[in-house]
Amino acid sequence: MQFHDPKNMAVSIIIEASELLEHFQWKSKEEVERYIKENKEEIQDEIADIALYLFELADNLGIDLISAMERKLGKNEKKYPVEKAHGRHTKYNKL
Amino acid sequence: MQFHDPKNMAVSIIIEASELLEHFQWKSKEEVERYIKENKEEIQDEIADIALYLFELADNLGIDLISAMERKLGKNEKKYPVEKAHGRHTKYNKL
Amino acid sequence: MQFHDPKNMAVSIIIEASELLEHFQWKSKEEVERYIKENKEEIQDEIADIALYLFELADNLGIDLISAMERKLGKNEKKYPVEKAHGRHTKYNKL
Amino acid sequence: MQFHDPKNMAVSIIIEASELLEHFQWKSKEEVERYIKENKEEIQDEIADIALYLFELADNLGIDLISAMERKLGKNEKKYPVEKAHGRHTKYNKL
Repeated sequence: MQFHDPKNMAVSIIIEASELLEHFQWKSKEEVERYIKENKEEIQDEIADIALYLFELADNLGIDLISAMERKLGKNEKKYPVEKAHGRHTKYNKL
Repeated sequence: MQFHDPKNMAVSIIIEASELLEHFQWKSKEEVERYIKENKEEIQDEIADIALYLFELADNLGIDLISAMERKLGKNEKKYPVEKAHGRHTKYNKL
Repeated sequence: MQFHDPKNMAVSIIIEASELLEHFQWKSKEEVERYIKENKEEIQDEIADIALYLFELADNLGIDLISAMERKLGKNEKKYPVEKAHGRHTKYNKL
Repeated sequence: MQFHDPKNMAVSIIIEASELLEHFQWKSKEEVERYIKENKEEIQDEIADIALYLFELADNLGIDLISAMERKLGKNEKKYPVEKAHGRHTKYNKL
């Protein structure tokens, strides 16, 4: 099996992550909150862009991303206190 | 509603994206492929780390990430030829 | 003239930039300040790592980085108020 | 002494690094070379932007960046073969 250029996809992921971060650049916590409320759709699209590349990369590598997340979460829970990791657990196991 | 520090989460996302990219640094396409085959679990964990932060951020902002991806994909399909975007479509609509 | 793989060098720059940022991850302004005071040499090395790659890339592309900075600063001063850009001016023109 | 928000400056550095990388995204080595030749000034400005933030951050932290680079280079030379590090040595010691 040949992969569809995972290095370039990883580059795309970091560039999209930078575009998301750019929205919050030089803003205080309060300014970030106000900004997100006023620019909800744009932020949503930036997050979706990262996710689209991430799922595409996972798919190209034959990785089931949701299972990979559950497995990684299990590892994290062994390393960190249950309470900290717990909040995360409800996020995607309903998918 | 108050968000749980989205700026710091966006910072975490880009740091995790950098850790993924680091695995492929200075490697040719062939070297990347071999490397992935020999380090599948590690790569899987790196991708899962990005996804975990991404889902957590989306959750904190009250964004349904899967719907956001579908909406963004719809926008992309209007901007780009159907063929290019098509490959992506099968990735997560089975979730 | 052939360049020595500027794409891989740009990848190295962003990875080093991420390593610097990682030191400040999840820290408040006060925590960052204390952290820097207590880890001065490490921070210094991280900044130096980015600079080393940046100068090497510039050198590979036949760019005189100091002149490029002066030129870019001139452009910025046209775009932004003198006061904002002024602080920057003293930084490297003593080199 | 108080630092001028080094965390936000580190965020700016990674965002600028991403903008540089974006120019090379999805391009082969040959395409990158041609692209740089045809867009020299733009690339130069991107590299200068990273350098401007880097020097400003160093200045804010009371770090002499050129000395820091020399010191880091010395450390690298101990860790890696002389030949690899040597190429780097001529880059900025003429400043």
